Amino acid sequence: MHGFLTYMAVIIGGALGGISRYMLILFVPHHEWLGVLLANVSGCFLMGWAVQALNTRKRVPSFVKKGTTVGFIGGYTTMSTFIADFFSFMTENWLLALVYVFSSVCGGILLAWLGMVVGKKVAVC
Amino acid sequence: MHGFLTYMAVIIGGALGGISRYMLILFVPHHEWLGVLLANVSGCFLMGWAVQALNTRKRVPSFVKKGTTVGFIGGYTTMSTFIADFFSFMTENWLLALVYVFSSVCGGILLAWLGMVVGKKVAVC
Repeated sequence: MHGFLTYMAVIIGGALGGISRYMLILFVPHHEWLGVLLANVSGCFLMGWAVQALNTRKRVPSFVKKGTTVGFIGGYTTMSTFIADFFSFMTENWLLALVYVFSSVCGGILLAWLGMVVGKKVAVC
Repeated sequence: MHGFLTYMAVIIGGALGGISRYMLILFVPHHEWLGVLLANVSGCFLMGWAVQALNTRKRVPSFVKKGTTVGFIGGYTTMSTFIADFFSFMTENWLLALVYVFSSVCGGILLAWLGMVVGKKVAVC
C-alpha cells in the first residue's frame, strides 16, 4: 500500500509537472527556449527548497516527498528539451549555444542554492 | 478539441515519463545519481531521435509529437534532481561534483547527436 501510494504520487506529480512546464512554454510565445530555461531554473529553486524544507521533515509522509520532488519538480524541469534547444542554437551561433548551456546549469545551481537557503527558514511544518 | 488533445497527451506523457524515471532510479539501488544520469542521457538520445524521426513527419498528429517530446521525454529527463545530486557530491568531493555535471551535460549532448543520426535513418513512418 505504501509503495502503491508512492507510485501514484509520482505519476500524478509527473503529470502536473509536465503540464506546468508546457503551460509556461506557451506563456512565453516565440521563445520556447526561454520557457524551458525559466522552468529549469525555477524548478531548481523549488528542488533546493524541497530538499531542506520537505525532505528533512519526519512528519511529511514519504509519498508526499516523492510525489513533490521526483514527480512534480522532476517532471517540471527537463534535461532533454534543454539539450535539444542547445542543438537549435548550435546551427545559428555556437557561442550563443554555449552561453545557453552555461546559463541553464549555473543558473540552476545558483537558484537551487537560493532555494536551500529559503528552505532552511521557510519550512512546511 | 485539438488543444485539449495536446494538453491530455502532455499530461499522460508527463505521468509516464515521471514514473519511468522513478522505476529506473529504483532499478539502480544505492546509486540514485546513476539512475538520474542514465535517465538523462538515454532521454537525450530519445529526444534526438524524436526531433529527426517524429517531429519532421507531417503524417504524425501534433498531439502525438507534443505528448512524446514535451510530455514523455521531457518528464523522463530532469534538471532539478541532477542539480540536487550535484550539491550532494559537493559536500563530499567538489571534483566529483564537477565530473558529474560534465558527464551529464556532455553525455546528454553526445547521446542527443547519436539519437539524431539514428533518427535520420530509423523514422516512424
